[in-house]
Amino acid sequence: MRISDLAREAGVPVATVKYYLREGLLHEGELTSATQARYDESHVARLRLVRSLVGPGGLSIAVARDVLTAIDEPPPDSVDLLGVAATAVRRPTEVRPHPEVHALMERWGWPVRERECAEHQVLADALDALDGAGFEPPAGVLDTYARAMDEVAAVELANVPRDSVAAAVRYVVLGVVLQEPVLLAMRRLAEAAAAQRQTPPSD
Amino acid sequence: MRISDLAREAGVPVATVKYYLREGLLHEGELTSATQARYDESHVARLRLVRSLVGPGGLSIAVARDVLTAIDEPPPDSVDLLGVAATAVRRPTEVRPHPEVHALMERWGWPVRERECAEHQVLADALDALDGAGFEPPAGVLDTYARAMDEVAAVELANVPRDSVAAAVRYVVLGVVLQEPVLLAMRRLAEAAAAQRQTPPSD
Repeated sequence: MRISDLAREAGVPVATVKYYLREGLLHEGELTSATQARYDESHVARLRLVRSLVGPGGLSIAVARDVLTAIDEPPPDSVDLLGVAATAVRRPTEVRPHPEVHALMERWGWPVRERECAEHQVLADALDALDGAGFEPPAGVLDTYARAMDEVAAVELANVPRDSVAAAVRYVVLGVVLQEPVLLAMRRLAEAAAAQRQTPPSD
Repeated sequence: MRISDLAREAGVPVATVKYYLREGLLHEGELTSATQARYDESHVARLRLVRSLVGPGGLSIAVARDVLTAIDEPPPDSVDLLGVAATAVRRPTEVRPHPEVHALMERWGWPVRERECAEHQVLADALDALDGAGFEPPAGVLDTYARAMDEVAAVELANVPRDSVAAAVRYVVLGVVLQEPVLLAMRRLAEAAAAQRQTPPSD
C-alpha cells in the first residue's frame, strides 16, 4: 500500500507517518521509485504500536525509540529482559548510594543486586520526593505496597511467553510501559471503592 | 527572611521563586516596602512541596497549581476527597461510555458511580493503549492487579488522618500524586526479585 493508505489504515495523518519514518520509529517501505515506497501490514502494526507508546503510554519520542529498539534487538541473555525494559523506560539523572532503599529491600526479601542500581535510585528519588513534600507514608503502607507488588510481579512473570526471546521481550517491555497506566487507574478505582465501603452511600 | 534567603533555604534559584510567585504556586510575602517582601517558614515548606510536585512528581505547572488548590481549598464534603485528588491529577481528553470497564468493575466488586466516569475513562484509555499496541494482558493479570490494588487502597484509606479535613485532603492529594512513582518503582523491583527467584543467580 502507499503511504496515504498506510496513514488511513492506522488512523494517523501522513505527516505523522513521515515524521516517524524520519525519527526511525517506523521502518522504511520498499522503494518502488525514487520518490515512492510500498508499505505492508508490518508497517500498520508498527504504527499502532508507536501511537500507543507516545499517546496513552505517555512516552517521549526518544524514549519510545529506546523501547522499540529493545523490542527489535532483544538482548542475548533472556534473564536480563526486565533490566532492558526498565533501562529503556526509566533513567534517573544521578545514581547515588541509597542504603535506605537497600534496607527496605532486605526487609521485603528482594535481593539487592548492584547492577539494578539505577532502579534502586528510582525508588530512592520517589521516596525523597515524598519527604521533600513533607509527606511521610504511614507505617505499613510501604510494606503493603511491597506485598501487593510481589503478587503483581509473580503473575506477570508467570505469564512471560516462553516460545521465543523476541516474544518475551515484547511482553516485558510493553508490559512495563503500557500496564503502568492500567495499574494506576485501578489503584484509583480501588481507592474510590474502599472509600465508598467506609461511608454509607448517599447518592 | 528576604527572597534570597528563602531561595537559599529551599535550595532553588531566586528566579525560580519569582516564577512560582508569578504563577500563583507560592503565596506572596508580606510587603515591607514597594519592592521588598518578607517571607517565613510557610514559604519554605510550600517551595519544597512545589519542587516535589514539579520535580520527581512529574507534574506540569498547571497541574501542580490544581493539586495545590485542592490542598488549599478542601471540598466541603470530605467523602469526595479522593475525587478531588483524582480530578486534579488526571484529566482524560474525552469521556465516552465504557461498558467493558463497568463489566470489569462489577467483577471486582467495585461500585460503578457515574460521577467517577472520568476515572473509568482513564482505565478505558489505558486498556485501549494495550489493545492498540497489540498487547493483551494474560488472563488473571488484571484480576491480580485488582486484588493487589484492593489491599493498597484499604491500607491507604485506613491511614487518612481524621483530625481535620485539611490534613485529610493533603494526605489524599499528595498520596495520589507522590506515591505513584513509589508504587511503580516497587513494582519494577518486585519483578526483578521474582525474575531472580525463577533463575539460579549467576553473579
